[in-house]
Amino acid sequence: MEQLQVIRTNQPKHKPNEDELGFGKYFSDHMFVAEYSSEKGWHDSRIIPYGPISLDPSAMVLHYGQEVFEGMKAYRGAEGDIILFRPDMNIRRMNRSCDRLGIPQVEPEWLLQAISKLVEIDHDWIPQRVENSLYIRPFIIATEPCLGVRASQEYKLIIITSPVGAYYSSGLAPVSIYVEDQYVRAVRGGTGEAKTSINYASSIKAQEEAKRQGYSQVLWLDGVEQRYIEEVGSMNVFFKVAGEVITPELNGSILPGVTRDSVIMMLKHWGIPVTERKISVEELFEAHQQGKLEEAFGTGTAAVISPIGAMKWEEQSIEINGGNTGEISGRLYDTITGIQQGKLADPLNWRHLIGKL
Amino acid sequence: MEQLQVIRTNQPKHKPNEDELGFGKYFSDHMFVAEYSSEKGWHDSRIIPYGPISLDPSAMVLHYGQEVFEGMKAYRGAEGDIILFRPDMNIRRMNRSCDRLGIPQVEPEWLLQAISKLVEIDHDWIPQRVENSLYIRPFIIATEPCLGVRASQEYKLIIITSPVGAYYSSGLAPVSIYVEDQYVRAVRGGTGEAKTSINYASSIKAQEEAKRQGYSQVLWLDGVEQRYIEEVGSMNVFFKVAGEVITPELNGSILPGVTRDSVIMMLKHWGIPVTERKISVEELFEAHQQGKLEEAFGTGTAAVISPIGAMKWEEQSIEINGGNTGEISGRLYDTITGIQQGKLADPLNWRHLIGKL
Ligand SMILES: Cc1ncc(COP(=O)(O)O)c(C=O)c1O
Ligand SMILES: Cc1ncc(COP(=O)(O)O)c(C=O)c1O
Repeated sequence: MEQLQVIRTNQPKHKPNEDELGFGKYFSDHMFVAEYSSEKGWHDSRIIPYGPISLDPSAMVLHYGQEVFEGMKAYRGAEGDIILFRPDMNIRRMNRSCDRLGIPQVEPEWLLQAISKLVEIDHDWIPQRVENSLYIRPFIIATEPCLGVRASQEYKLIIITSPVGAYYSSGLAPVSIYVEDQYVRAVRGGTGEAKTSINYASSIKAQEEAKRQGYSQVLWLDGVEQRYIEEVGSMNVFFKVAGEVITPELNGSILPGVTRDSVIMMLKHWGIPVTERKISVEELFEAHQQGKLEEAFGTGTAAVISPIGAMKWEEQSIEINGGNTGEISGRLYDTITGIQQGKLADPLNWRHLIGKL
Repeated sequence: MEQLQVIRTNQPKHKPNEDELGFGKYFSDHMFVAEYSSEKGWHDSRIIPYGPISLDPSAMVLHYGQEVFEGMKAYRGAEGDIILFRPDMNIRRMNRSCDRLGIPQVEPEWLLQAISKLVEIDHDWIPQRVENSLYIRPFIIATEPCLGVRASQEYKLIIITSPVGAYYSSGLAPVSIYVEDQYVRAVRGGTGEAKTSINYASSIKAQEEAKRQGYSQVLWLDGVEQRYIEEVGSMNVFFKVAGEVITPELNGSILPGVTRDSVIMMLKHWGIPVTERKISVEELFEAHQQGKLEEAFGTGTAAVISPIGAMKWEEQSIEINGGNTGEISGRLYDTITGIQQGKLADPLNWRHLIGKL
């Protein structure tokens, strides 16, 4: 690998108040940038002060959406470690996304080093409070200045980081969700299983409609029959039905979440039955009618575990577990965040240490 | 409307050779830019020298794909007029796309003036050769620096123009197309009928696969049953079957093309029967077997009319009209380009003159 050039800022920014971080509003002092051209491959890696990038107005990403991204977090460990959570999973997924979007893949070890080095340089930006963290956003954009519809021959890989708050400032709070039966997020043969900007713009309308009706997230159904449950907002989704935990199987239109995978592994580690399969919305509401729907929760990097307290589908509104956080949801949240924060043992080897604070 | 500020370049670029224009490779000397904020609405309209734009690396368009665009052309008329072709249709479609993507709409008259003024200032960039033209690309991007998944509160509207060659430098040349039965472009409830970047990135993989097999375009089937014909590459599609012209009806996942609409109007004007309805790929191949499939062609701003000479679906390969341009395809091409270029009468009032050269 070529030498990584580092240019440090001489105007470090004022750090935001840790009570008001929110999500993705503040950015640290530096960013990583690398360029791709067909001749040179990925090259010119550098860490430079965070700041605007310059794009030709005909840069392909602005017209045909050729983009992929990832989302992961760095935690300040109890013992002063800087901890990443399963970064290899994010890097592998990024390369699969690249493949779907016709974007050249990256060398996994090189990307991991880029992320590690960037976080190390901006380690002061990892929040102090244990429930906060530094969100890491690597992304690749097509930069060739051309309006032809085809794969770009030039790209930029950028990594930015953002100190973020806990989703739940005062403990887990169950959300209410709205089963979307009009808009569709993804369909088999589409890009649903890739982490790419193009899956998100289409969701804005649905999300706004759900908000207007008083729901905080949308539950997505499959694009073909609009019957099978896929995801919740930007999270994967799990249900506990009559003692068994179930989650939609990866079918090509669902994003394979790192948190989803971790939840499945942890449940198995605990000896709790968990099944990946098709789940129709009828089945779910029927289970509720029979008193068998015991818990529901979303999983994702931002919230880790997000208990679902209520759901609306067409004319039916149901409450789950009395609108409270379920036992498994709570246990998973405590365990996974505990591992991420370096407070608990790490039986499944998920922590990746990148240095000492 | 606020005053439009104009800053002219003092370094006009060298114009490209008209034989080698291609599509979207060269850009004229100026561009139009306007900003949107929730407080001010669209503001700060200006025409400035064409050049790079500056974006925060967290600008929402780079992460969640909130973008719309349009594509239209300016022609150098026989009498020295600068001619636009039905610009009101593009502007209306842009506003519908905005609505689907959660982007604030624009005032149609304001956008038309912006386009007209920009083309007027860069009128030297409208190619001399009658078959060439100046392609106009208005687009809106979400620029708010934030990683939350929601509608941006800030946008940029940019218009760039590019001198482009005729698709067919030596007359109409039929293309061969590949019926895509794996990848899906759009589905009802998705964004297929909007002109947004997010519909194009997903097509790159399919297009590359078609090219590898020797086909120049992909024919898209519907996302639900993968059975009904939707579009061809970035064009709408028409067939002549037993004397009747048919085209897929607008169903929410098909882009409502300006050329498509013009073809339908012109056929009606000529008294040729034309029907918009569902067309399955089986039906089409059966019609071919029975000797009834007489012509096929794509329609779009770039090529205007693109005759289809061959099609492959699963294991069946068929030739249409002996691989030659059909009579109706040729007549439509000559008539519509003749109207666009100001050479023929304009019975349906499609020309919009924006000045004299
Ligand atoms: C659509 C979607 N589904 C699921 C997830 C959860 O994935 P992960 O657990 O890797 O964060 C995300 C990302 O956060 C997402 O954007
Ligand atoms: C997907 C798609 N379909 C059809 C068309 C044709 O539309 P129009 O005739 O307005 O150019 C286009 C744009 O050119 C397109 O991108």
